[in-house]
Amino acid sequence: MPYVLISTQIRLTSGPTCCGDKDADPKLMARLDAKLVKEFGNSFEEYRCDDPPRLVLNKLEKEGYRIVSSAGIGQTIVWTLYKPDD
Amino acid sequence: MPYVLISTQIRLTSGPTCCGDKDADPKLMARLDAKLVKEFGNSFEEYRCDDPPRLVLNKLEKEGYRIVSSAGIGQTIVWTLYKPDD
Amino acid sequence: MPYVLISTQIRLTSGPTCCGDKDADPKLMARLDAKLVKEFGNSFEEYRCDDPPRLVLNKLEKEGYRIVSSAGIGQTIVWTLYKPDD
Amino acid sequence: MPYVLISTQIRLTSGPTCCGDKDADPKLMARLDAKLVKEFGNSFEEYRCDDPPRLVLNKLEKEGYRIVSSAGIGQTIVWTLYKPDD
Amino acid sequence: MPYVLISTQIRLTSGPTCCGDKDADPKLMARLDAKLVKEFGNSFEEYRCDDPPRLVLNKLEKEGYRIVSSAGIGQTIVWTLYKPDD
Repeated sequence: MPYVLISTQIRLTSGPTCCGDKDADPKLMARLDAKLVKEFGNSFEEYRCDDPPRLVLNKLEKEGYRIVSSAGIGQTIVWTLYKPDD
Repeated sequence: MPYVLISTQIRLTSGPTCCGDKDADPKLMARLDAKLVKEFGNSFEEYRCDDPPRLVLNKLEKEGYRIVSSAGIGQTIVWTLYKPDD
Repeated sequence: MPYVLISTQIRLTSGPTCCGDKDADPKLMARLDAKLVKEFGNSFEEYRCDDPPRLVLNKLEKEGYRIVSSAGIGQTIVWTLYKPDD
Repeated sequence: MPYVLISTQIRLTSGPTCCGDKDADPKLMARLDAKLVKEFGNSFEEYRCDDPPRLVLNKLEKEGYRIVSSAGIGQTIVWTLYKPDD
Repeated sequence: MPYVLISTQIRLTSGPTCCGDKDADPKLMARLDAKLVKEFGNSFEEYRCDDPPRLVLNKLEKEGYRIVSSAGIGQTIVWTLYKPDD
């Protein structure tokens, strides 16, 4: 699973940070301290942690992921990260 | 057809994902499980699949495509992918 | 003229696509099937074609242009392409 | 001063283009035909020229600057350019 | 801490510039003249300086950081910078 999408809403300097959809690698999510949550009103689950995005990006860098691109959609910023499969 | 545009609306962690316009490569679209649909009120068709975008990006990576850039327009995020022609 | 800016509004999977300002290379614009138009209410002209942006990006790739970046402004997505001068 | 930020509002195919803040390199700004202006209601000055952004990007390319990234904020598109210091 | 996030609101050609969250490297923040502030109504602190973003990007370039990507979210532009750990 070479791509990871990290996103955060409105504020860059505070969490929570969304780290993955429900099919994300559970071991990687655990190392990011991200838990599978279902927000009220949503029909799907996603992984979130309390860290601000910079800390999550730094942790993923140690895992070998590099940022490919970033994009803002509405009030959300999304980083796309890539690590070649072993 | 070296470029592919992938987009998803509002939510990163759930599908559907738009995988192509009506002239996209039908074999590639089939491998992405994307079907040609015409949304109510639209005058054109597009290919969509039910997977969240991360899974589509991972499938395209196996096909040799790499992410060139991403952009947010309104509530939609768009990834531009590239694979040199054979 | 090493840079080209391609943009499209709201929909990725349908044209028209804006291919250049009035000072764009007219030979390149002709090869993209883009015509110089002046939209009602605008004080300036721009080149537009009927193709969706993916087809325009593919044509420009054949011309030697590569995507440098993309950005969303309001409901418009803009690709910046680059080709070194001969 | 290795970084330059170029921005334009709403329209890609027409100027004016904002080329720098008040501390930008005045010689570079002169070569871009950009003048220091203070817009009504603003408390700060900025350099602007009448050219559309594509022409400004082409001029900066001749100066040795390359586009690093682009981003849309509201109705404004911003290109970040880089040239290593001599 | 290889990643740094720089952001500024609405205007490119004037400060303040947000340089980091409360866990950012305090020595780096001091070299950027950024101070830890808590805005009225926010539950968290962030580092800010008075310089426009171009000056901050130039200072970070001297520190060895390079821009990876930029994104616009609402009226805010965010640059993601990277420097490999020593």
